[in-house]
Amino acid sequence: MGARAGTVDQRLVRGARTRRTIARRAADMASVEGLNGLSIGRLATDLGLSKSGVQTLFGTKERLQVAAVESARETFLDAVVRPASEAPRGVARLRALIERWIAYVEAPVFPGGCFWAANLAEFDGRPGEVRDVLFGYHRDWRALIAGELREAVRAGEIAEPDVELAAFQIVAVLLAANTGLRLGGDGGADVDMARRVVDGFLTPPG
Amino acid sequence: MGARAGTVDQRLVRGARTRRTIARRAADMASVEGLNGLSIGRLATDLGLSKSGVQTLFGTKERLQVAAVESARETFLDAVVRPASEAPRGVARLRALIERWIAYVEAPVFPGGCFWAANLAEFDGRPGEVRDVLFGYHRDWRALIAGELREAVRAGEIAEPDVELAAFQIVAVLLAANTGLRLGGDGGADVDMARRVVDGFLTPPG
Repeated sequence: MGARAGTVDQRLVRGARTRRTIARRAADMASVEGLNGLSIGRLATDLGLSKSGVQTLFGTKERLQVAAVESARETFLDAVVRPASEAPRGVARLRALIERWIAYVEAPVFPGGCFWAANLAEFDGRPGEVRDVLFGYHRDWRALIAGELREAVRAGEIAEPDVELAAFQIVAVLLAANTGLRLGGDGGADVDMARRVVDGFLTPPG
Repeated sequence: MGARAGTVDQRLVRGARTRRTIARRAADMASVEGLNGLSIGRLATDLGLSKSGVQTLFGTKERLQVAAVESARETFLDAVVRPASEAPRGVARLRALIERWIAYVEAPVFPGGCFWAANLAEFDGRPGEVRDVLFGYHRDWRALIAGELREAVRAGEIAEPDVELAAFQIVAVLLAANTGLRLGGDGGADVDMARRVVDGFLTPPG
């Protein structure tokens, strides 16, 4: 019985690992094609798995889409939020978050650039679980920026009278910079502009 | 021969009219599903036309997508740019453009809200004619805002030191407001924030 439980455990571990691999690949694909462009068949072919195996792990396309968003969220936390959280709170952490974010779309971590930029417009008018997780994490990002701005105000580093408005603007210009980058050409100019907008918020007055 | 030429003319007129109707419907659909979600078959069914008829008028899906963008551009000019151009140049016209733009996404003119917001992310990484027209018109919009800002500076109405940066920010926060609106809930809050950002640029200093 101990041996049998061990076999089951190993299968569960392998299943969980395969699930993570598929979800990660799905997130990469969705950054280019959008979450609606995901195809269980194509994912299976790409990863050398059987279509029925992928179907067993995720069930519906919606479950796969949600798993892709959750995977993208983990990737985003690893690339942007966790490394920046080593910087002291307030302006230093904000600068780290913004620079990590720019690297995340410049490098880029996802082949299609910002995962959220690639998918928000596709789901903004489609109520459901995919939209809920997608926009939930997008709101978390804005709230994170707002929270650090608040911290910077509390510490007397900046004198921002409206932290929510500043966070709204910062998130908006970063998304616009991502669009500029995806186009190539003078996309770098849009990144510079986004940086200058952020600098405007993070520089102490006078 | 005169009669025959007349018949040909009428056919051309009918063809052009049908083409416009199809392109307009395609733009509506693409504002919700994206330009890649367009289907000649579904368009034909929606409009009570034969699939082969639609195919004859547009040829490829790419031609249909370009026609949808051109149609969206006309709709945008009618809804936003032309009415606003009745206002005197500078701050008055900028305010008219922004209010018309907000009405265009609040009403909304396209069922999916801003046509550009719905499609820029889908095409930013796909070089080709669709991307070229889509981003060409998007750049025109930013250039229009920048041009009026420049006019406002020239007339001494505002003292904006960097017109390109201001236009970049205005366009970015309007797109963010559109996203907020599509989500429902407190989307109106994002529109208010976009308005306040614009006001910040249009208010004379001191």
